[in-house]
Amino acid sequence: MELWFKELHDAASGITFKIKEYLYSGKSPFQKIDVFEVETYGRVLVLDGMVMLTERDEFIYHEMICHPALRVVHPDPEKILIIGGGDGGTVREVMKYSEVKKVTLVEIDKEVVEVSKRYLHNISGALLDPRLEIRFEDGVHFVKHSEDKFDIILLDTSDPVGPAVSLYRKEFYENCKNRLAQNGILVTQAESPWAQLTTLKNLLSEIKGLFHKTTLYLSHIPTYPGGIWAFLMMGENYDINKIQRPLPPGTKYYNDDVHIGMTALPQYLKEALDGNY
Amino acid sequence: MELWFKELHDAASGITFKIKEYLYSGKSPFQKIDVFEVETYGRVLVLDGMVMLTERDEFIYHEMICHPALRVVHPDPEKILIIGGGDGGTVREVMKYSEVKKVTLVEIDKEVVEVSKRYLHNISGALLDPRLEIRFEDGVHFVKHSEDKFDIILLDTSDPVGPAVSLYRKEFYENCKNRLAQNGILVTQAESPWAQLTTLKNLLSEIKGLFHKTTLYLSHIPTYPGGIWAFLMMGENYDINKIQRPLPPGTKYYNDDVHIGMTALPQYLKEALDGNY
Repeated sequence: MELWFKELHDAASGITFKIKEYLYSGKSPFQKIDVFEVETYGRVLVLDGMVMLTERDEFIYHEMICHPALRVVHPDPEKILIIGGGDGGTVREVMKYSEVKKVTLVEIDKEVVEVSKRYLHNISGALLDPRLEIRFEDGVHFVKHSEDKFDIILLDTSDPVGPAVSLYRKEFYENCKNRLAQNGILVTQAESPWAQLTTLKNLLSEIKGLFHKTTLYLSHIPTYPGGIWAFLMMGENYDINKIQRPLPPGTKYYNDDVHIGMTALPQYLKEALDGNY
Repeated sequence: MELWFKELHDAASGITFKIKEYLYSGKSPFQKIDVFEVETYGRVLVLDGMVMLTERDEFIYHEMICHPALRVVHPDPEKILIIGGGDGGTVREVMKYSEVKKVTLVEIDKEVVEVSKRYLHNISGALLDPRLEIRFEDGVHFVKHSEDKFDIILLDTSDPVGPAVSLYRKEFYENCKNRLAQNGILVTQAESPWAQLTTLKNLLSEIKGLFHKTTLYLSHIPTYPGGIWAFLMMGENYDINKIQRPLPPGTKYYNDDVHIGMTALPQYLKEALDGNY
């Protein structure tokens, strides 16, 4: 028997994987969680039918959500807040900087962490780091009520359906801004500019005027819709071209050349965002 | 009845399209040719089971194979040779430069041109340009026996299977080099550095030492394996950072920012090519 997984990225196109082994299927209070293994991509984590990561290409997303901010942030990036990211991949990358003293991970769904610890060891290993505090609560609630300040906040969220909808609203970004330490930086994953351009446009429209600086940057992610993924950096005072500290060894996608190239937007995207960016 | 097309990019993963209308299926002396329509990608041209282009994203490949060379080549790029590219997309982009006086298209498979003229009007329209000469012959034979010289040669070839195998051998590149006018530039599509890294490595190894300058550059192409596609520029005397002429209006992917960003190689690729590039 051959078992094929299919994720549609629009009404008529998508990605397909031949499943070598089905490892886990469960339903948390928040979403459906599946893990299976693919011969050419390793283990794959799927939430509500959407590929969140594969072992083969997860390094791209996890490096790109954090290294640019960690390289250009002005103060020593001692305190980091990650919202979402229960798989542990973003924590793993952040922990590569010795300047980082404390990481707070706010994940709404405890079962994502449990499943990742059980099935995705290369990704979840960093969840054991003593500098990490994990809080199982709603990120929206956390940034509204916390009084802590963070040098960097990373929004490692899922697509704007189900539990993640309110992560794309202006009020959430205002509350994130209030949680930033002086010269702090906020980064959010910003969906596929090819397949989910409306989401990116809505996001830019929600945050318009909220930050003194915003930088949209791109990366290739083979298993995400369109193979292209956007991130948005926001803050009051940073220079994207001014690197403040050396790159820790061992990155597999991000490097100094990528840092320069990542802000080049294709013409179709420039034109589509005209007026909002 | 739902009809789904699937192209595997490796043993266990690939892209899938829901077919809205099946327009053409035929077998030329060289390959199988299919054209179908997809609601979200428009018409799709498939050769031997591999997606060559879709109406929605073909602009990326066709702009990226030619504009970088046309921007940086030193002399007036009057004479252009295109090998492959019977669909007409590369011809369309090249014709945007008024400096271009003559384009020679050498396509082995007349039926690709016929099918494109019949089903892909937005792409094949430029095949009517009076500056174009179409020759239906083997590109390998052409560059071996022609005595013409070209300012730019573009290798708009299919994957290294079937009729295209000898397009990836050193002798072919030597013959192309002999057909370059002084300060001429050769560009080849160079496959997916994610899904077909071995092909790219073999290509770099075949051409090693042949040209004074080589530049590898990248683009996002959603419907190609891995969503990332490489091109290789070769020549004796060009500066990739020195733009010689303005960009013609109307590009949808390529622009001055993309020109700078396209040469940033991700770390995994830098490491994989170490020693050959």
